[in-house]
Amino acid sequence: MINIGLIGYGYWGPNLARNFAETEGVHLAAIADTSADRRDAAARRHRGVPVCGDAASVIARDDLDAIVIATPLETHYPLAKAAVERGKHVLVEKPLAGSRTEAEALGALADKRDVRLMVDHTFVYNGAVRRIRALIDSGDLGELLYLDSVRVNLGLFQQDSNVIWDLAAHDFSIMDYLIDARPVAVSADGTAAAGFNQESVAYVSVHFDNGFLAHFHVSWLAPVKMRQMLLGGQQRMLVYDDTNPSEKVRVYDNGVDFDVKDDETRRQILISYRTGDMHAPKLDRREALSLVAREFADSIEQRRAPLTDAAAGARVVALLEAAEVSLRAQGQRIRL
Amino acid sequence: MINIGLIGYGYWGPNLARNFAETEGVHLAAIADTSADRRDAAARRHRGVPVCGDAASVIARDDLDAIVIATPLETHYPLAKAAVERGKHVLVEKPLAGSRTEAEALGALADKRDVRLMVDHTFVYNGAVRRIRALIDSGDLGELLYLDSVRVNLGLFQQDSNVIWDLAAHDFSIMDYLIDARPVAVSADGTAAAGFNQESVAYVSVHFDNGFLAHFHVSWLAPVKMRQMLLGGQQRMLVYDDTNPSEKVRVYDNGVDFDVKDDETRRQILISYRTGDMHAPKLDRREALSLVAREFADSIEQRRAPLTDAAAGARVVALLEAAEVSLRAQGQRIRL
Amino acid sequence: MINIGLIGYGYWGPNLARNFAETEGVHLAAIADTSADRRDAAARRHRGVPVCGDAASVIARDDLDAIVIATPLETHYPLAKAAVERGKHVLVEKPLAGSRTEAEALGALADKRDVRLMVDHTFVYNGAVRRIRALIDSGDLGELLYLDSVRVNLGLFQQDSNVIWDLAAHDFSIMDYLIDARPVAVSADGTAAAGFNQESVAYVSVHFDNGFLAHFHVSWLAPVKMRQMLLGGQQRMLVYDDTNPSEKVRVYDNGVDFDVKDDETRRQILISYRTGDMHAPKLDRREALSLVAREFADSIEQRRAPLTDAAAGARVVALLEAAEVSLRAQGQRIRL
Amino acid sequence: MINIGLIGYGYWGPNLARNFAETEGVHLAAIADTSADRRDAAARRHRGVPVCGDAASVIARDDLDAIVIATPLETHYPLAKAAVERGKHVLVEKPLAGSRTEAEALGALADKRDVRLMVDHTFVYNGAVRRIRALIDSGDLGELLYLDSVRVNLGLFQQDSNVIWDLAAHDFSIMDYLIDARPVAVSADGTAAAGFNQESVAYVSVHFDNGFLAHFHVSWLAPVKMRQMLLGGQQRMLVYDDTNPSEKVRVYDNGVDFDVKDDETRRQILISYRTGDMHAPKLDRREALSLVAREFADSIEQRRAPLTDAAAGARVVALLEAAEVSLRAQGQRIRL
Repeated sequence: MINIGLIGYGYWGPNLARNFAETEGVHLAAIADTSADRRDAAARRHRGVPVCGDAASVIARDDLDAIVIATPLETHYPLAKAAVERGKHVLVEKPLAGSRTEAEALGALADKRDVRLMVDHTFVYNGAVRRIRALIDSGDLGELLYLDSVRVNLGLFQQDSNVIWDLAAHDFSIMDYLIDARPVAVSADGTAAAGFNQESVAYVSVHFDNGFLAHFHVSWLAPVKMRQMLLGGQQRMLVYDDTNPSEKVRVYDNGVDFDVKDDETRRQILISYRTGDMHAPKLDRREALSLVAREFADSIEQRRAPLTDAAAGARVVALLEAAEVSLRAQGQRIRL
Repeated sequence: MINIGLIGYGYWGPNLARNFAETEGVHLAAIADTSADRRDAAARRHRGVPVCGDAASVIARDDLDAIVIATPLETHYPLAKAAVERGKHVLVEKPLAGSRTEAEALGALADKRDVRLMVDHTFVYNGAVRRIRALIDSGDLGELLYLDSVRVNLGLFQQDSNVIWDLAAHDFSIMDYLIDARPVAVSADGTAAAGFNQESVAYVSVHFDNGFLAHFHVSWLAPVKMRQMLLGGQQRMLVYDDTNPSEKVRVYDNGVDFDVKDDETRRQILISYRTGDMHAPKLDRREALSLVAREFADSIEQRRAPLTDAAAGARVVALLEAAEVSLRAQGQRIRL
Repeated sequence: MINIGLIGYGYWGPNLARNFAETEGVHLAAIADTSADRRDAAARRHRGVPVCGDAASVIARDDLDAIVIATPLETHYPLAKAAVERGKHVLVEKPLAGSRTEAEALGALADKRDVRLMVDHTFVYNGAVRRIRALIDSGDLGELLYLDSVRVNLGLFQQDSNVIWDLAAHDFSIMDYLIDARPVAVSADGTAAAGFNQESVAYVSVHFDNGFLAHFHVSWLAPVKMRQMLLGGQQRMLVYDDTNPSEKVRVYDNGVDFDVKDDETRRQILISYRTGDMHAPKLDRREALSLVAREFADSIEQRRAPLTDAAAGARVVALLEAAEVSLRAQGQRIRL
Repeated sequence: MINIGLIGYGYWGPNLARNFAETEGVHLAAIADTSADRRDAAARRHRGVPVCGDAASVIARDDLDAIVIATPLETHYPLAKAAVERGKHVLVEKPLAGSRTEAEALGALADKRDVRLMVDHTFVYNGAVRRIRALIDSGDLGELLYLDSVRVNLGLFQQDSNVIWDLAAHDFSIMDYLIDARPVAVSADGTAAAGFNQESVAYVSVHFDNGFLAHFHVSWLAPVKMRQMLLGGQQRMLVYDDTNPSEKVRVYDNGVDFDVKDDETRRQILISYRTGDMHAPKLDRREALSLVAREFADSIEQRRAPLTDAAAGARVVALLEAAEVSLRAQGQRIRL
């Protein structure tokens, strides 16, 4: 039985608590939050679980094997560091830390203490995203050409960071999982709503050395919620629409052949407007977060790195940092 | 009665022919195309209209008052120049010319010869776009914050130019019509499909001096056709989805107040996730191109500048040129 | 504090338990289910709440004020009867009972014992349905003409009853809440999938004395989930699509005037194809079941009839019974 | 070369004229309409084609081989009869005639005179409908269980007939083409808008001897246009949504097995909520009416019955008649 303490019961913490409470082999043994209101909410939902206001006392408890951190970004590093130093396995809400340096330091520390350090890149455990990875692995899509992502809503403004740190972290983690090529440069543009210092609408391009291009539109200022990703391959292309209740992933035959042999024909090619068949595979509909909880527990029991380990967390943070530098430099392309 | 000659009966020419044939006060008196197949098609659809293969002979005819040019981009300038010099009123398919210099030269020449020079920015005459302009004018949207446009499909590759010249020309003309502020800089990123020299996927940002940001995603490589524009204002935001058969324009109350007075509150503001009411106005469903034909005829009869005049055409071409320069300069921001 | 015992922890019971556990002034004090697996699930989710296999012992407990029944239909009557006779307030899952006679008997018994008897017509507490009721009350729709409902999915077959008892119960309860006129006759058609005795696809018409017509399509055999209701009025019509995440209720101006005075004009009228503006009001998004729990508690505290009382339950059961009679009589119209 | 005369240039006539004008081997040689306005419109669109107000004189012309009739329903029989008696091949707009007796009489007369008599069941030539027929023929759907059709809009009221004659004629022709089993009975319900004698909303059930059930919802009073058909089979089910621009036909694996052998298991079966994969085949996007014109010309040249012959026309009219009888008899089931 793995005894777990949860620090942070704000927006995401309740989901983590619920999922760990229902994970076999795991016992939710402590919840901490600095807000009295949130502690009341935790106590009401999780009778019998001790609730306190003090993260340090939870980390200090000898009977806890692992700590789950779902607090504001600036506290990720100190809390995770303290927990790892105390010999706890740690799961940290995304993004792993506020800088690549911190993220990599946490990874090194966890290696040294031989504990598991995992980042909650929830979407990597989503049935749709895992199905897309399987489609890529099967070769059905052909060579990959581009990824285009839109994640927008009229949303909850973060006060201390821009929309990229809030929303693009999800998309970068999906890209990190799906695309084997490595990114080499990042550029970003954005604008702030009147009266705000931080960008609330932003666009990020990520360039890869093999010519692959990824582009991200994130916004807190859209009239409607949209969660849409296009992934284009030489053979097939797909749309992943996370707001579509029944057909989240649709795979389209291109109906065109780009792979013309002689250069002359290639340039002359007139690609027809038509599209081929479409196919929407059945997806695993289990809650992604339940698989996050399962993977954290399994990685502890099996003494192995989790799928979304500190290295993945650091790669995502590196992209976020680079995007922010580009934002401050008029969209200049920043090499990674 | 205005006698019109049409040069070019390829993809768009038949639509122009049909609309001018049904415009009162206009007589379609000649059609020219270099392809025998296209001439046969023209003859079958427009019995009684002389069809020939020679643009020059059409321009030379004394009995024609106006020339409509729907030929490949590189011929716009020489054909339009010849027609204007011959004293004809001219309507040119978008984009007006291959460079801002040429576009402005055509405008100056038309002024000198006192003929009308109009560019077919069709979308400016679209019921949805005109309704959006009316919403802006009414003040209902409040101060404008951003415009985001997606125009993608698995489409017909142009062989001699990139996707920006093909598709973004539409969106730039819509932006030029809707946004009164003036753009100051352009940046663009893109990628080419394997075996092609020209970008088939591209992203363009247009920066305005008042902080307004416009962004365009254009692609010939998408799995599905999408035509979607978001326009965000301080009071209301709208979605214009041209593929939606019944509700092309949807206007959303923001349900939030950005205009908080003191700075402290402003930074503290926690904007709720909720969205207000939505409203989808009834639109004028007349074919936009019939209004293009009407405007061209009216501008000739009334001896006045058309709504989409040479200056509008030149502004759009200037944006296209700047985007291309940025594409060749690794996405560097190009001042207009 | 109202002490509540829940009988039945199958499909719907967990939702009731969760909502009552979070309702102020209510204490979830017992859960009963005949299945050991379900009891385990209940114990895991609701630590500290006694769980047993025996409904009778829960009903017998003196410290419980109210009983919530979420068991198979055939047990509703005996369990509710036993609980009412024991002086408990009772909330019963829909439909209230297996026959109108039983439903009315329960209502009479509850009156006699002066306890509250409520039926869980969940949709009556749904934000969209309540908004539609408000639209009707405001007169915005004008005189009502018809209601058309589609509720279909590839679903969980009930073994002991047909699809009407399973799915149309929801729609009848919505109709009962929205439409003030009274139904006078019911007819139904249906078909069973191969190997099943009970209809899995059915159509029900409900006729009203004022000419209003309601029609229901229910099915366990559809390829996709659909939850759509049309409500047509003389002035406006609406679409209620419960699967639409952002715009569940859309209200359309008719753009036509049916109320022409003289008969000749009336017959001659050529109604244009056009549709007027559309409006999608913001809805209360609270979980309907939390309002069911609140209403049950309030009706107990305030000693008043709940919104969905035994009479409403009996009216819905009467419609279900009549539909079944019609199904067995080749679709003959059955008077209520 | 087949010389064709078109009678009726109202709503549908222009589409027929355009398609026949572009059909190889066919010459559009005459257009008749009783309205001067419509004759003007015809003359403008079809320069060089003689236009007159007198159907009889067109039928009388010796140089015409075939007559196309697109006039109000009550004139179909007399005009078609006159044309057939004059030895002309005839294409009649749907429905073929106002009664089954008339429809069958026209068929017999055409046989006797050895001319082709075809009915314009346009949807039978639609790429989506033909694809569905191919899916049925391939056995992919398995044994067919039901067909459900919705065809509604806020539409053009016919003054002299109800919505069934106007809209259900399309759906009956699709059903007649797709379903090999024969219908045995029809029942119908409906309601009229205030001030109208004729039903503007109607529901029709068609019963087949093998248990297959077809149901049709037709309406002139809906807030939005809907064109949706569900076709359920033992193996797969499909949705045909004619308003969906990119995926008109979606085929769903059922993901369930109805064909359980022993009765006990069969009753016990708990069918999972899940749905299998979905597949949207690429469709022939040619305009259906161009294929109608082609088929009419081919049947004349090849001296064979057209696909939608008089017998098909009569079967559809028989269903329309039976539905109307049921409407007048309180929804009683009418045997065919």
